[in-house]
Amino acid sequence: MEQTSGLSRRHFIIAGAGAGVLVSNTELGLGFGTAALAQDKPLPGYVSWKNAKAMIVHSSKTLETKRNFFGTSGITPADELYVRNNLPEPSDEIVANRDAWEVTIEGVKKPGTMKLGDLKKLGITSVAMVLQCSGNGRGFFTHKASGSPWQVGAAGNLLWSGVPLRAVAAAMGGVAPGAKFITGTGGEKLPAGLDPKKVMVERSVPLAAMNDAVLAWEMNGSPVPLAHGGPLRLVLPGYYGINNVKYIKKLAFTGKETDVNIQRSGYRVRPVGQKGAPNQPSMWQMTVKSWITNPLKESAKGPVQIYGVAFGGTDAVRRVDVSTDGGKTWKRAKFIGPDLGKYAWRTFVLSADLKPGTYTIASRATDAKGKTQPEKFVENERGYGHNGWAAHAVKVTVV
Amino acid sequence: MEQTSGLSRRHFIIAGAGAGVLVSNTELGLGFGTAALAQDKPLPGYVSWKNAKAMIVHSSKTLETKRNFFGTSGITPADELYVRNNLPEPSDEIVANRDAWEVTIEGVKKPGTMKLGDLKKLGITSVAMVLQCSGNGRGFFTHKASGSPWQVGAAGNLLWSGVPLRAVAAAMGGVAPGAKFITGTGGEKLPAGLDPKKVMVERSVPLAAMNDAVLAWEMNGSPVPLAHGGPLRLVLPGYYGINNVKYIKKLAFTGKETDVNIQRSGYRVRPVGQKGAPNQPSMWQMTVKSWITNPLKESAKGPVQIYGVAFGGTDAVRRVDVSTDGGKTWKRAKFIGPDLGKYAWRTFVLSADLKPGTYTIASRATDAKGKTQPEKFVENERGYGHNGWAAHAVKVTVV
Repeated sequence: MEQTSGLSRRHFIIAGAGAGVLVSNTELGLGFGTAALAQDKPLPGYVSWKNAKAMIVHSSKTLETKRNFFGTSGITPADELYVRNNLPEPSDEIVANRDAWEVTIEGVKKPGTMKLGDLKKLGITSVAMVLQCSGNGRGFFTHKASGSPWQVGAAGNLLWSGVPLRAVAAAMGGVAPGAKFITGTGGEKLPAGLDPKKVMVERSVPLAAMNDAVLAWEMNGSPVPLAHGGPLRLVLPGYYGINNVKYIKKLAFTGKETDVNIQRSGYRVRPVGQKGAPNQPSMWQMTVKSWITNPLKESAKGPVQIYGVAFGGTDAVRRVDVSTDGGKTWKRAKFIGPDLGKYAWRTFVLSADLKPGTYTIASRATDAKGKTQPEKFVENERGYGHNGWAAHAVKVTVV
Repeated sequence: MEQTSGLSRRHFIIAGAGAGVLVSNTELGLGFGTAALAQDKPLPGYVSWKNAKAMIVHSSKTLETKRNFFGTSGITPADELYVRNNLPEPSDEIVANRDAWEVTIEGVKKPGTMKLGDLKKLGITSVAMVLQCSGNGRGFFTHKASGSPWQVGAAGNLLWSGVPLRAVAAAMGGVAPGAKFITGTGGEKLPAGLDPKKVMVERSVPLAAMNDAVLAWEMNGSPVPLAHGGPLRLVLPGYYGINNVKYIKKLAFTGKETDVNIQRSGYRVRPVGQKGAPNQPSMWQMTVKSWITNPLKESAKGPVQIYGVAFGGTDAVRRVDVSTDGGKTWKRAKFIGPDLGKYAWRTFVLSADLKPGTYTIASRATDAKGKTQPEKFVENERGYGHNGWAAHAVKVTVV
């Protein structure tokens, strides 16, 4: 797979050298070339239940959904959802008796440890939200950002059920004075011989995330799979994937951000070449974004249903415009299917009558506050947060 | 499984003899006793991809979702969805090249045959809807209705994508004058030596169903599985499962209902002992219904989150009331999660502070037109359409 990543990146560098030239990511192998190489790599055992045809296996801890597998029904099936783990996942013993899983709550007036079975008594809610890796789109940057060269497939739209974090805090006497962050700690077993702060998954987000936060035990109607954080995951609608801590073992309301590496220097946006530091923006709230999912490479002439997915991130997506001429002209697409709420993505469709030729098809989403995807996106050291519409465009041949 | 069905039914007859006594279907084995017996029966090969723990295998053509597996996230995962086939399903060759599947359209001004690949050019829509077998709840009738003794699990809530039937008709010159019904024909291979009219799956529904009808190729974000009608299924939101013809090969706008057995005498509601006939009501539109999914048998004392699913059938569900005393008093439950549209079901929740004791927990839904589930439901020969709230109640012991 290293070979595949390298290949993909080199193609990008070449293509990126031509200023103003929009790059077809299908030419770059997404869902086709990359997949053809990657499909030789079998699914890792712990996710052998995934749909192998739908996944690009970057490594044992990173699997991407192929662009042509997103569908139009709004929800991403669990067996086609991307996987990104920072540490080896815990033993599946932890999902053998889910209700026995314990989470410690701190920074409340009556701190303590609760079993999942007890959390279930406190209330229940359900929310649809986009789960997206901070590095989704990293493959579109032209510098050699380290990390998986995700294109569009490190994202999915999911239904989660669990207890509102507000209800948990209320049951424990309320949040203690002075709290400014929600700090979640994952239940992974840490590798021996290393400083825990260098490897542990512990993330802090602003306390404002509390409003819609959920301690979730169900995803898409089934118990959360181990690979996706079961038995219990912190779900923070609108926040990048890393903040949605898997196998959550401790949740603390804290006055400061945690000082572990993954928070202090990891997931920080900075210019290429700089090291991560606490004074740089953290990968918290997601931004408005969209991408085409059909057609991707070629199409017959005549009416072509151009569709894709769009979301606002923290705010609802309000509109999507589609261009078939690389951004010179735009037409408004329509949304189909039910509106699953402000944190969900929507499927958009534009019917275009295309004659034989080559088209660069782009989509550009606008959120409820009027923020629109930029054409280009500024390079940053780790390749985070790419939502530029030009790089996400596809080149399609109509015959 | 015959043994299990018989057992379940006998228990019902005994229990049903006590007038005014609400029967706990958990006592009758739903999801527990029945499951314990049924789990010895393995999944049939063609649905080996289902979650075996979630399914009650009645026969090779009838599988039911266990009541405690419905979850609270709104959508039924494909691998936990019930199966009910009238004929052996077609070979999986028909899903090897989905876009090559052909469907003949008749009763339009320019009749003809279209490939699925061509249908995809005509437009796309997405709809959430409850798919429910006409006989769901048959197990609650006290007479020996023939057919699978479904309790609540011959139903699911699904997302479908495909082309609006309106767009298909428009592309073929419009519906021909005089049409009153939509008649769909399944693509199953008919058993040799039998009169086709006695066995073929062909169903007619009123033309009014056209408004929201979809020729669907996607379910829950993936191509429709063969077991659920792929590559192409007629989806008629609000109509009982049988009308949603699988592997659809012919769709005709007709002046009369088809005269095949499954329409003429099958799926007709009539008094116990009568034969089916065309002058009896056909199992078309669904009615308002709900059931509890948690708790089902026992619970710890204190705050108990009582939840379940509710739908209106043809109209949206507007409210659900829950009783913990067998229907003497009711409290309004609240809905959680996104509203997926009028044809979808919603998860409802009521938090109740229960002391040790025994409770008969019932739910009663009301649709947007004010229609409410009845307490009892009139017996009918084939055990169709049961939506009485009393029989759907559960007896729960709080310790």
